[in-house]
Amino acid sequence: VAHTLHYAGGQWDRADRIRRDTDELQRLWQSPDTRWLPVFKANNLIAGNAAVMRTRAELEQTGLSHDGGTFLGLDNKGALFSVECDEQQAHAWRKLQVGSEFVDLRAVGSSMSTDEACLLGYARALSHWQTQNRYCGVCGGLNTLTAGGHVTQCSNVDCQRQVFPRTDPAVIMLVERIDAQGQRSCLLGRTASWPEGVYSTLAGFVEPGESLEDAVVREVAEEAGIAVRDVRYCASQPWPFPQSIMLGFVATAVDDDIVIDTHELEDARWFSESELPLFGDWGDQAPGFKLPRTDSIARFLIDSWLADAKG
Amino acid sequence: VAHTLHYAGGQWDRADRIRRDTDELQRLWQSPDTRWLPVFKANNLIAGNAAVMRTRAELEQTGLSHDGGTFLGLDNKGALFSVECDEQQAHAWRKLQVGSEFVDLRAVGSSMSTDEACLLGYARALSHWQTQNRYCGVCGGLNTLTAGGHVTQCSNVDCQRQVFPRTDPAVIMLVERIDAQGQRSCLLGRTASWPEGVYSTLAGFVEPGESLEDAVVREVAEEAGIAVRDVRYCASQPWPFPQSIMLGFVATAVDDDIVIDTHELEDARWFSESELPLFGDWGDQAPGFKLPRTDSIARFLIDSWLADAKG
Repeated sequence: VAHTLHYAGGQWDRADRIRRDTDELQRLWQSPDTRWLPVFKANNLIAGNAAVMRTRAELEQTGLSHDGGTFLGLDNKGALFSVECDEQQAHAWRKLQVGSEFVDLRAVGSSMSTDEACLLGYARALSHWQTQNRYCGVCGGLNTLTAGGHVTQCSNVDCQRQVFPRTDPAVIMLVERIDAQGQRSCLLGRTASWPEGVYSTLAGFVEPGESLEDAVVREVAEEAGIAVRDVRYCASQPWPFPQSIMLGFVATAVDDDIVIDTHELEDARWFSESELPLFGDWGDQAPGFKLPRTDSIARFLIDSWLADAKG
Repeated sequence: VAHTLHYAGGQWDRADRIRRDTDELQRLWQSPDTRWLPVFKANNLIAGNAAVMRTRAELEQTGLSHDGGTFLGLDNKGALFSVECDEQQAHAWRKLQVGSEFVDLRAVGSSMSTDEACLLGYARALSHWQTQNRYCGVCGGLNTLTAGGHVTQCSNVDCQRQVFPRTDPAVIMLVERIDAQGQRSCLLGRTASWPEGVYSTLAGFVEPGESLEDAVVREVAEEAGIAVRDVRYCASQPWPFPQSIMLGFVATAVDDDIVIDTHELEDARWFSESELPLFGDWGDQAPGFKLPRTDSIARFLIDSWLADAKG
């Protein structure tokens, strides 16, 4: 799969070898080329459509000082660290650049470059994971961060359990059927919390003890009562909202009759390949059917499936 | 991908709708058709190559009583629950059947049926996740189990944070190159902890903020210093030892010269398609090169690649 989806394909070097090299981390914290990116309550700082990042010298002018932080890697200018801010630090960061705001990446990421959206998603995901793991799950002891922010370690000397960042795999699938006349249609559903008229591909988390393909079959059966065959992988996309990776598939329906799980879905329907091009976009104010957001793998699956029809 | 790998493809119904139906769970605990499977220190109870499971009536004969447990789903005989045992309960369970033993599924799973190996892997994974999440990571409060054992909830009324089972996505990839004469070879490596002579495909955990394809490129570069293109998905396999899912790929090398990361690998080499059929099996006592274990996706990737050559 050559296609790079949004929030993926970051071109900086994660340089994992440096994470455990405390001397090198110390040196990078002092380097004039190192830049910090702030995270405040899971939000990233942007100005216009660009990430705000600053060197030590720039930060010291405003009284901000971030010794340490989470090591994100190296780009062509030097090292990158993210830092978790408190209220006061967030205020100081905002004053560094006119028009900068802490925003939910999910709301603005689609208008950013893929590389910066990926970097900010990475920073946000690590920050979220750190805030969710302040205490040890085994003994309740206080965790400390180590390995440049990429490992938590329990401070209880009888425990010392280490935990690594968590990413939850989720499958997302376009289910197609082809009728006796060769007309193709696909199964899309909606949840009540989405904007009016939006329909999208079904999705769900992978459970322990199942393959991705098992999860696709199970989720489509659970949510829509449809059996599927020929489960084919298409693409994957990190979705750090807060901690998923989306694994995209196409599958072929064996049944026609939809029976939705009303706990999961408000509605699900078959839409023909001739209906979908008439749909509006997520965010459109006009009434009527709408496609999922343009930066999502759901949209990529639908667009690819429509393009296949033409090709 | 039609192939079902070991530890996947379980044919029972996980029946997730029942997890939150406390009345139905109560009813199933009383049902004469319900069976329990014990887990003791992450080990499963087997006799011969079969899982040991027992009804309430059978358990009561030996003084064992398991009210509750983790809901695994429904098979054609009724409901299935797993239970975490203490030392005394484990002893009572072993006495229920001559020759039964608590064993590490990883050591014996390949000789079991795919369906039972998958069920025991599921039980083991949920048990591991529960033991690793006794306390809340956000506030340090004591967690309680809910939703039939599939959700932890913090008992601190100011927190009440819920957490779902964790599965870590990992990529595993066969890297191939084709020389000027059309001779195909693939990149295999070994870690010092493996049996002498075993070489296998490279692998590594997916990090936050990257796609599966990003992770394949990064891991091969980190571990072997090789750049790859044309990253193609092949298959996936749950690997509950303790909590991974393996996502299998083939990729094409752009470089030839291997530079290993000595923190990760002891050695890595190119092996030609004519050399690999001469390899022994994991577990063979004779010296010489050996392939990875037969129940692994690593072996599936290698076998599929060799079969492609012949086809």
